[in-house]
Amino acid sequence: MTGRTARRRVLRVRVPPGPGEDARADLLAVEEPLEIRVDGEPLAVTMRTPGDDIDLAAGFLASEGVIASPSDVTSIKMCDENVADVTLGAGVTLPDAGLRRNFLTSSACGVCGKDSIDAIRVRASYDVSADQVRVSPEMLARLPDRLREAQRVFARTGGLHAAGLFTADGRLLALREDVGRHNAVDKIVGWALREQRLPLAGCVLLVSGRASFELAQKALVAGIPVLAAVSAPSSLAAELAEESGMTLIGFLRGGSMNVYTGADRLLVPVP
Amino acid sequence: MTGRTARRRVLRVRVPPGPGEDARADLLAVEEPLEIRVDGEPLAVTMRTPGDDIDLAAGFLASEGVIASPSDVTSIKMCDENVADVTLGAGVTLPDAGLRRNFLTSSACGVCGKDSIDAIRVRASYDVSADQVRVSPEMLARLPDRLREAQRVFARTGGLHAAGLFTADGRLLALREDVGRHNAVDKIVGWALREQRLPLAGCVLLVSGRASFELAQKALVAGIPVLAAVSAPSSLAAELAEESGMTLIGFLRGGSMNVYTGADRLLVPVP
Repeated sequence: MTGRTARRRVLRVRVPPGPGEDARADLLAVEEPLEIRVDGEPLAVTMRTPGDDIDLAAGFLASEGVIASPSDVTSIKMCDENVADVTLGAGVTLPDAGLRRNFLTSSACGVCGKDSIDAIRVRASYDVSADQVRVSPEMLARLPDRLREAQRVFARTGGLHAAGLFTADGRLLALREDVGRHNAVDKIVGWALREQRLPLAGCVLLVSGRASFELAQKALVAGIPVLAAVSAPSSLAAELAEESGMTLIGFLRGGSMNVYTGADRLLVPVP
Repeated sequence: MTGRTARRRVLRVRVPPGPGEDARADLLAVEEPLEIRVDGEPLAVTMRTPGDDIDLAAGFLASEGVIASPSDVTSIKMCDENVADVTLGAGVTLPDAGLRRNFLTSSACGVCGKDSIDAIRVRASYDVSADQVRVSPEMLARLPDRLREAQRVFARTGGLHAAGLFTADGRLLALREDVGRHNAVDKIVGWALREQRLPLAGCVLLVSGRASFELAQKALVAGIPVLAAVSAPSSLAAELAEESGMTLIGFLRGGSMNVYTGADRLLVPVP
């Protein structure tokens, strides 16, 4: 739980098929929620990689202008592996409630990965595990180029994340871009909701960067059965995908991909 | 304000000096806060690229499980270019306060970029504009490799962002990694606070990804005069850097870099 990497079994697929295509172990960056409590009261939850958690809590409070020197803090203790409890020094106070609402928190609902996953599963209205869609590696391998071609803005600034929603045969339904990955996905989901397309059964969501827990959660709540990322997924994204029956694909680029969960949806022989 | 890209003047520097080294216009992805109000009450602020804001508000509420169909919403209106006001349908309610604290919000303090910048500038205890440090392009060009060499975990998972704190002559003071960029920087700042090193005068902070407003803000609050990113900065990061006298460098890779603000700290002739 508290390491920085987690080992997972992954199916490596190449298009066209070639050497190095097999089941293997892969290392994922660990993502777990950290709850920061101040004087016993929960203040914020952030999805983070365990390690240097005391520094993370201190740095968060310093960045928010709550503390500015070591003497502003009496103690910072981990009261659980995912809970940091900060006791402020005499005379140091939190901003008022009006400012506190602006603190950065995550949409995670618990303070351990399991709690978060349970809370999210309750919240999701749709059961993606029942989605019978099948996708071919050839179709998947073409998606990153399609996303990039559709991203005129990305090509000009290099600064925008993209999320593309595709049908199972690779047709682009919607593309949204944003400086925030989660916003690009929210824009897709909001479009689908307003178009009365939820749940997005049989669809593939491709994100231009990494697949975090938060993105997997958003895909799940929208009923999307296949989530693909150009870069790496986090450990908690893979756990959520596995428990909910979602297909999670990472490192989808250059004609190869890693299938972390739900490989039965891929039209390839599964070892 | 409401476009997706913003034009900024940038100084392009190459190591060794070569063609294409000059002042030019560069397009940055626009980053502005969006406040999402529900039935008139502020619920969340997210840093986003303007566009599809109605969808963003709807998708945010859908992802959070508040709404699941178009009939759950009576209306969504932009009551300002950076404020979306959602009126829920009859019988649709927000989660209770205990859950609401977990909503994703940003640490931005206002609903327009200018307000945010003003609020942040008030919060910062240190004036980085007075920092007389000078840095050479040759030193800067070496930093990405140094960061990567120090990142053993990154090489193994490909899933972690890194933040490295360097002296002005390129010595690594601290390296932190995380699935979240902001966490990697908070871990650096928390370490510095506990080591009584704040403000981090004369230091260079290098981040492995993009430079968002939030990262620029964290660097500013810690008194860091030079922020460098391997990838693109956002428009609001550049605005904050300019107003606060911070040097902001983007696309620092392959021996070249774009200097967005504070070029007078670079040991090169400034056009």
